[in-house]
Amino acid sequence: MACLAGASADLSRMVLETAKMLDREASTSESAAEIESCFDRLWPLHRSLTGEGVRRTHDILGEIVPLNRIEVPSGTVVFDWTVPKEWVVRQAYLVDPNGKRILDVADSNLHLVNYAVPFRGRLSRQELDAHLYSLPDQPDAVPYVTSYYQPRWGFCLSQRQRDALPDGEYQVLVDTDHIDGAMTISEAVLPGDTAQEVLISTYTCHPSMANNELSGPLAATFLARRIAGWRRRRLTYRFVFVPETIGAIAYLSLRGEHLKRHVAAGYVVTCVGLDQPFTYQRSQRHDTLADRAALHVLRSSALPHEVRDFHPTGSDERQYCSPGFDLPVGSLLRGPYTQYPEYHTSLDNKNLISFDALRGTIDLLEATCRALDVNATYRSLAPFGEPNLGKRGLYPSVGGKRANMDHRQRARATLWLVNQANGERDLLTIAQRSGMPLELLSDIAQECVDKGLFEISVDESKAGKE
Amino acid sequence: MACLAGASADLSRMVLETAKMLDREASTSESAAEIESCFDRLWPLHRSLTGEGVRRTHDILGEIVPLNRIEVPSGTVVFDWTVPKEWVVRQAYLVDPNGKRILDVADSNLHLVNYAVPFRGRLSRQELDAHLYSLPDQPDAVPYVTSYYQPRWGFCLSQRQRDALPDGEYQVLVDTDHIDGAMTISEAVLPGDTAQEVLISTYTCHPSMANNELSGPLAATFLARRIAGWRRRRLTYRFVFVPETIGAIAYLSLRGEHLKRHVAAGYVVTCVGLDQPFTYQRSQRHDTLADRAALHVLRSSALPHEVRDFHPTGSDERQYCSPGFDLPVGSLLRGPYTQYPEYHTSLDNKNLISFDALRGTIDLLEATCRALDVNATYRSLAPFGEPNLGKRGLYPSVGGKRANMDHRQRARATLWLVNQANGERDLLTIAQRSGMPLELLSDIAQECVDKGLFEISVDESKAGKE
Amino acid sequence: MACLAGASADLSRMVLETAKMLDREASTSESAAEIESCFDRLWPLHRSLTGEGVRRTHDILGEIVPLNRIEVPSGTVVFDWTVPKEWVVRQAYLVDPNGKRILDVADSNLHLVNYAVPFRGRLSRQELDAHLYSLPDQPDAVPYVTSYYQPRWGFCLSQRQRDALPDGEYQVLVDTDHIDGAMTISEAVLPGDTAQEVLISTYTCHPSMANNELSGPLAATFLARRIAGWRRRRLTYRFVFVPETIGAIAYLSLRGEHLKRHVAAGYVVTCVGLDQPFTYQRSQRHDTLADRAALHVLRSSALPHEVRDFHPTGSDERQYCSPGFDLPVGSLLRGPYTQYPEYHTSLDNKNLISFDALRGTIDLLEATCRALDVNATYRSLAPFGEPNLGKRGLYPSVGGKRANMDHRQRARATLWLVNQANGERDLLTIAQRSGMPLELLSDIAQECVDKGLFEISVDESKAGKE
Repeated sequence: MACLAGASADLSRMVLETAKMLDREASTSESAAEIESCFDRLWPLHRSLTGEGVRRTHDILGEIVPLNRIEVPSGTVVFDWTVPKEWVVRQAYLVDPNGKRILDVADSNLHLVNYAVPFRGRLSRQELDAHLYSLPDQPDAVPYVTSYYQPRWGFCLSQRQRDALPDGEYQVLVDTDHIDGAMTISEAVLPGDTAQEVLISTYTCHPSMANNELSGPLAATFLARRIAGWRRRRLTYRFVFVPETIGAIAYLSLRGEHLKRHVAAGYVVTCVGLDQPFTYQRSQRHDTLADRAALHVLRSSALPHEVRDFHPTGSDERQYCSPGFDLPVGSLLRGPYTQYPEYHTSLDNKNLISFDALRGTIDLLEATCRALDVNATYRSLAPFGEPNLGKRGLYPSVGGKRANMDHRQRARATLWLVNQANGERDLLTIAQRSGMPLELLSDIAQECVDKGLFEISVDESKAGKE
Repeated sequence: MACLAGASADLSRMVLETAKMLDREASTSESAAEIESCFDRLWPLHRSLTGEGVRRTHDILGEIVPLNRIEVPSGTVVFDWTVPKEWVVRQAYLVDPNGKRILDVADSNLHLVNYAVPFRGRLSRQELDAHLYSLPDQPDAVPYVTSYYQPRWGFCLSQRQRDALPDGEYQVLVDTDHIDGAMTISEAVLPGDTAQEVLISTYTCHPSMANNELSGPLAATFLARRIAGWRRRRLTYRFVFVPETIGAIAYLSLRGEHLKRHVAAGYVVTCVGLDQPFTYQRSQRHDTLADRAALHVLRSSALPHEVRDFHPTGSDERQYCSPGFDLPVGSLLRGPYTQYPEYHTSLDNKNLISFDALRGTIDLLEATCRALDVNATYRSLAPFGEPNLGKRGLYPSVGGKRANMDHRQRARATLWLVNQANGERDLLTIAQRSGMPLELLSDIAQECVDKGLFEISVDESKAGKE
Repeated sequence: MACLAGASADLSRMVLETAKMLDREASTSESAAEIESCFDRLWPLHRSLTGEGVRRTHDILGEIVPLNRIEVPSGTVVFDWTVPKEWVVRQAYLVDPNGKRILDVADSNLHLVNYAVPFRGRLSRQELDAHLYSLPDQPDAVPYVTSYYQPRWGFCLSQRQRDALPDGEYQVLVDTDHIDGAMTISEAVLPGDTAQEVLISTYTCHPSMANNELSGPLAATFLARRIAGWRRRRLTYRFVFVPETIGAIAYLSLRGEHLKRHVAAGYVVTCVGLDQPFTYQRSQRHDTLADRAALHVLRSSALPHEVRDFHPTGSDERQYCSPGFDLPVGSLLRGPYTQYPEYHTSLDNKNLISFDALRGTIDLLEATCRALDVNATYRSLAPFGEPNLGKRGLYPSVGGKRANMDHRQRARATLWLVNQANGERDLLTIAQRSGMPLELLSDIAQECVDKGLFEISVDESKAGKE
């Protein structure tokens, strides 16, 4: 763990170095404490597919980076689905035979089955049992249970607490409602020099859990603030906050045609708060720009990581990679769902995650976005034989502003570039073949543009217009 | 060997399971005893490129599954070749110096060189020697010798018998004839819902030998009977019985244009009677549907097997994969020619083969045909985002007719299907990527068609019309 | 080393065998002594980018094979470059404080910095020091130093000699000139039956060094004489002798459009005189015909060798593989630049190289050219089923002119050919797949052409016309 924290620090340094080398400002980096403070405000909100808890969550995230709010009315048909009614929770608790109020949703929003229908009545301990959810194998954990599409009410509690419930009569109050309201979605679009987009998507429908899922929205939001602070963006960056599944589907019904034309690469960000190695899950087409960029950064950083193929049983990449869209969208994880025992329980809480690890995730995401942003495709305007680099001042001379660069490496990288810049290969491709750092190649390529030797090759197939 | 016989039993069970799961009838399966009984009737017939022995062979096979007989007249030009005269054998034997009749073709048809020209005369032991064929390294084996295109007569015997031949005068009678007759070919076409065909080709020109070659015709014939018994066939199945080389060439001259348009996959079936692991030989294009289906079944069954590349020095796949046709035709073997010492001798007899192994071959071929038959290509009609499986009843519920299926696996397979069914990937491709059983994918896909979620995508390039 | 010399002898034998088998004359092979004699004449000449030393070098090489001389005037613009002035060296030496003439260019042309500007004067030992070049790590080596594009004068000497220079006043004479002359290029084109070309390029700008670089021009020249002696050439062979970089660029400016249309394969030949394993460096597109042919010969010969990817920091392949041309040009080396310690010093001399090894290089190059020359693409005119080889006399019969061939192998190779000759696969492709010797395939294919079974398939994409 110490080792990984160290690696994360290395990554952070790499991002800074890159920014410095590119002669760009360092991004507006958040502290772990700032993330934690935001986490603490978001934690108690009663999130679900819909409702005020979600709106309040988006309000708080919107303080960090401005968000464009979209309210999709209940009943709206989105492709094969219909937006559900909005869920309203006023209060919900039991009163035990001793008159003690227990499992109060006001204490923990996990106690109430998500989307529970209203109920008011008195039940025996035995009658009540069919409405209780606990985990015998994890006797201290309160499970996270939803019932979005089947009308049902119920309470979640630890097995230990359940076993201790006395016999007798229980008073039940589930004061909820399902109203014609709306489903809340937010987006932030940071425009760049080109219409090509990087899509970052995360979800805000999970109540009080930490890794799955406050880590994703926090990472996405602070990443957005960093990128908003870049001096210049070649690409456009789009951040999407939706309830899982139905939200992504609704967003695609609103923006799908635009995304098909413009998304160059995208990532679903979820479960990124554990101090564990990264997991990169490929996009459906498994060798898209999204995959190449993320893997380039992971490999260059030498951080331990795992790569796995796309599979359609995960999160919202299922929607983005559905056959009608099949977008180049992968997924970054750091403690994947179902691979840690606290998943979908009350034990997935602040103690489990690391705010330093979360910053490391943001570093990695920013480095990946940097890689995408510099990954232009260049065409040499002197392609016949090697260009005369000396007369153009493109051979590094001792001293000067790049005196701290390794001259031999720069010369080699320059020769690779002028050989490979045929207007078809992007810099990631050249970096992979040559083994040269992407940032160095980008720096030289930009200098070649400045000196009239290269032009940027516009790939119409990627940068379509609406 | 016990192990392999066991594996074969497993395969048989797998085929049955598949049939059951697909809610189809089990095929009309033959017993080992029935195969053996058929073998015993075919064994003594005097087969060659042409002649009555071949006709009688096709008669007997035709009792198992109806065959369409084609007689190609001697002298017919088929591409670069001419159909040879028909060979007639009345009698052939020697009388040794002691007056004893020996090497009588009536005892074993291997004694006479195949296609021998007539001869009648008296020769000394020494003069006779140039007309004798034996194998010094296998002193008890009578070799199988042919001389189709060079006029010659001769007798085949064991080295031990040859060494014991006394000096003196021998009387020779080779009462044969080469007449303007015909070359006998048979075919059976089992029509299916589509014009796409599976081709099964085997040869019937070898006289009394068991693995090479009564095993192939027996396997093909009983396979045909099984498939004829299927309740439904998506594909059309074509079984071809020809003399090797010239017969396949003649068949191509008759049906080649049709086969080019319609054959989706095919297999040459030869040397399939030894209780040994299977050998799959790829088609010339080495990754055709024929290869993918056979290898899928071999791998799924976990049977030990060997895979080898196409090479044009084998059997009739040389003709089907010739550059003017280049059909997707592989070859299945179980004890390949030239890889067992009894090959092309009298030792390749009933003792060498196993009728249980032969049934295992038929099981494997049927499983491969099943795989081809279910291997449709589907297109989702709700490709934008994930379809709502719940409202369509496509999430398995506990109980019901599929209660014995693993629900989680079915749900995962369904998600794979709706993601991958883009109208281009066939089920074998999806099975390979997802690791899901082909039969399960097929079952779900069919349910999706029934519920209006999928349509079958017709690949015009494979299902051409004449 | 003995082992490698042996392998080289094997290669030589292989080439001879090939020639014999193809029923062609053995090539006009040079002896090691003849190469050495030529080396001795070339050694002292004062070569540089331009000048009389280069012209004299080309004169001597032109005695071995006729060369077409091209003089490109100083100041000519060639793509991004300008041909430099011609360098004239009349005399250059120092007189030490004892009146002794030292570092005289007449003793060794390495003593004078290449392209040094004129200077005449008296300097103290200390003032002189800024104009001296030596190698502290290799105290006995005189370094090879150039200053083509920066006006400078200087002397090169061993560190040992430098350390021994007495204090006092030195008299300096650098009697050089930079005149409006020309840069000397030579080419030899050996026409073949087709316009497709094999390009062999080497450079003649290095003064008195042996591996880098008299070995390349010697190998290329004697190779040219051998190929000129072939009875027949299917391909055209082009040999190019240029100064490195600027010369190749100038040549491309003269012949680039022609080369783009006609070069089927090419090799830069440099550093090929050490008795070491071969190194093959791939062309930029890394699987061109150049690569396939060279690697086929290296693998078939079973000589130890190393293969490395193209990299644009080497020799003139940088120019041929620049994006505007991207020709299929690899590089053959045997003791690559920068990988032996004597590189670019006076220690890279006759003692370092082996004339037997150099002959081995020529053998390998000739074998590669032979492979390219026989590597036609054939189309079977009887593609439907297997052709009747017997009636065409294409099955080898015992005896006859090819009695010493292995009949079984020839029959197998014939079957491979008739299966694979679809008018698209060249013989190298068929050799690789079948494992059959290229020469055998070529021999059979030619026989098939003679007997009307094959025709040569003309690939318009490679054999364009101007």
